Amino acid sequence: MREFFKVVSLEQARALAVRFGLVGTEAVGLAGAVGRNLAEDITAPADLPGFRRSTMDGFAVVAASTFGASEAAPALLDVVGEVQMGEVATATVGRGQAVAIPTGGMAPDGADAVVMVEHTEHLDDRTIEVSRPVAPGDNLIASDEDAAAGQVLLRAGQRIRAQEAGLLAAIGQVEVEVFRRPVVAILSTGDEIVPPETQPGPGQVRDVNSTTLAALVTQCGGRPLQLGIVPDELESLSSTCLSALAQADTLLISGGSSVGTRDLTLAVLHALPDAELLAHGVAIRPGKPTILSRTGDKAVWGLPGHAASAMVVFRVLVQPFLQHIGGGDQAGGLRVSARLSRNVVSAHGRTDFVRVRVEPGQDSVRAVPVLGRSGLLRTMVGAHGLVRIDRDTEGLDAGAQVSVLLF
Amino acid sequence: MREFFKVVSLEQARALAVRFGLVGTEAVGLAGAVGRNLAEDITAPADLPGFRRSTMDGFAVVAASTFGASEAAPALLDVVGEVQMGEVATATVGRGQAVAIPTGGMAPDGADAVVMVEHTEHLDDRTIEVSRPVAPGDNLIASDEDAAAGQVLLRAGQRIRAQEAGLLAAIGQVEVEVFRRPVVAILSTGDEIVPPETQPGPGQVRDVNSTTLAALVTQCGGRPLQLGIVPDELESLSSTCLSALAQADTLLISGGSSVGTRDLTLAVLHALPDAELLAHGVAIRPGKPTILSRTGDKAVWGLPGHAASAMVVFRVLVQPFLQHIGGGDQAGGLRVSARLSRNVVSAHGRTDFVRVRVEPGQDSVRAVPVLGRSGLLRTMVGAHGLVRIDRDTEGLDAGAQVSVLLF
Repeated sequence: MREFFKVVSLEQARALAVRFGLVGTEAVGLAGAVGRNLAEDITAPADLPGFRRSTMDGFAVVAASTFGASEAAPALLDVVGEVQMGEVATATVGRGQAVAIPTGGMAPDGADAVVMVEHTEHLDDRTIEVSRPVAPGDNLIASDEDAAAGQVLLRAGQRIRAQEAGLLAAIGQVEVEVFRRPVVAILSTGDEIVPPETQPGPGQVRDVNSTTLAALVTQCGGRPLQLGIVPDELESLSSTCLSALAQADTLLISGGSSVGTRDLTLAVLHALPDAELLAHGVAIRPGKPTILSRTGDKAVWGLPGHAASAMVVFRVLVQPFLQHIGGGDQAGGLRVSARLSRNVVSAHGRTDFVRVRVEPGQDSVRAVPVLGRSGLLRTMVGAHGLVRIDRDTEGLDAGAQVSVLLF
Repeated sequence: MREFFKVVSLEQARALAVRFGLVGTEAVGLAGAVGRNLAEDITAPADLPGFRRSTMDGFAVVAASTFGASEAAPALLDVVGEVQMGEVATATVGRGQAVAIPTGGMAPDGADAVVMVEHTEHLDDRTIEVSRPVAPGDNLIASDEDAAAGQVLLRAGQRIRAQEAGLLAAIGQVEVEVFRRPVVAILSTGDEIVPPETQPGPGQVRDVNSTTLAALVTQCGGRPLQLGIVPDELESLSSTCLSALAQADTLLISGGSSVGTRDLTLAVLHALPDAELLAHGVAIRPGKPTILSRTGDKAVWGLPGHAASAMVVFRVLVQPFLQHIGGGDQAGGLRVSARLSRNVVSAHGRTDFVRVRVEPGQDSVRAVPVLGRSGLLRTMVGAHGLVRIDRDTEGLDAGAQVSVLLF
């Protein structure tokens, strides 16, 4: 492993992270497909809905039979049949004729429009008056209006939401090939860290990052593999990392905000087989002590020990990385545009991420910076997202239009 | 059950929906708590972090020892000890003295600040030069800076995100009382509907709503109970509804866009024990044929058969209802502010929801209306959210600032 200190920019770190290969794919049923990234293009196997459907309750007609109809001079049509839901329309409609049809019913041959029932009146069992004209196509969905056979409906990499799952159901694709959920091993280090269920002694604190990172991994579609707290000791840390990487697609080591633990983390990454240090420090705040390393074809991330800093690094670096290896084509996650409530200053040469609360404002949404040091959980509990201040600016003025990256 | 046609406004429908009682609560472990709504206020049992911690690698000092220090005239301090991570600081720091301390280490008695290691130089094993002064409190977190004992940290009704789970871990609260996930029974009706895995005959279509509604229920924290397709027949539909309501907190019946099915749904709701029709029609588009009924203390929703309409009704009515019965205190869900890309017209007397695609624009985000009839799934697959056009307006102009309710 190369030894020198390699501080990279945020953009460089992201470019390094997307060099890693994608996880494999698997076939899943529709219920399990929601929230997953498609691994194949989806093509319509047939026209959808596949037949001409009425969008109204009314009468299927030849539109020309109604031309010129009005309240004063209604068109008189012979009712020659009735369409049953879910069945083939048997009647044929000719000029001067009408067939009763329910919403969703299949249009009978000959009909080119549907008159809404509200615009008709029964004269007798066999005759209706139509008081408004319809044009060809009115109140009818074409056979291929939702999709034409062979049309690409969804693309590989697309995230399956409720509506995409619905479209898959509509075309009868009850099993789809999706990318596996990336398995993300999570471990904490640091001699002062105790498990959440333990009463810390003086000088000790409870492990927070195992909980927050696992929640974030789940939230962005991955599967967390929680390995708990590993003592600051080369041999046990190395062997835990090795067994983690055998089971997981990537590994997050957090803790190590002190020089001693940081050095140890580096030594452990060094000791892993086929290891290469890609980034040792990223020019962002918070999150400078972030490490990105490669061992074999897998990425290992060293995250700051501060809970709030670790969350920020996850959001701006690890999440896009997981989207990438998880086969997703959508970068970055959800953003909200807002106006900054007050000035924030920043230093040249690094990208700052300011925690903000999003509040409804007068004319637009307000982004209110949350004050407090990066180690404080309180600053994250009060925050909805992050505002980025670019490397080459010295800050942002109150009222500036900003894009808030939501947690 | 009262019989007359009761069309209500969107606001009236929402007011009716929040009259229903909340689901019960349960104790869950931290990993299962994420995404759930807290059922109790959470109070800090002790100060957090509980001791004075250094935020830097450096030396704990009495700040006054460094006053006036500079590169030219550094302060000379005696190193009298070293703080070990996770252990009680044994040394005491006096004027003119320093104790080495790692980031996160416990400040020794007497010290009131930490000098960063970057601003020091070792003269020998026992002496350092300090080249910059520190003020009392510099680079130290107070014992109660993240939380003071007894302080309310989280409120009942708050949704637990990664950071709230982290805060619970930090205070050792590894089990919390949360609201149960509301169980939502879902059934489809309609003689033309076949299951997704079936090849539809002429005039038939596959069931889409069971899939989309289940995905939406899961997405907003509920547990879907999929009951499949029930034939348009009073007795079987009634008995399925009864058994559904015995297992679930609420029931969604979709389908029924034709008059016949709508009438049947009404008749079934009528036949349920202790039934009251609350709304028969809501003045929104799409979604007018929505029904809200009460049976005992549970709500039954009749949703439109059109997949896209059913999704819109879910988003604007059922989702806030589920948040309410699920104990959540946050209304409405995620919104993005954007500028409308073109004029949209609307009718007086009803609230319109226009499907939009959200795109990055020049100065702000653009909301681009997605064209197409409400029955088409395509319009939902292309959309990111909904723009609301209020009842008393006739539309919105291109360039108008709008709030997009995200799916």
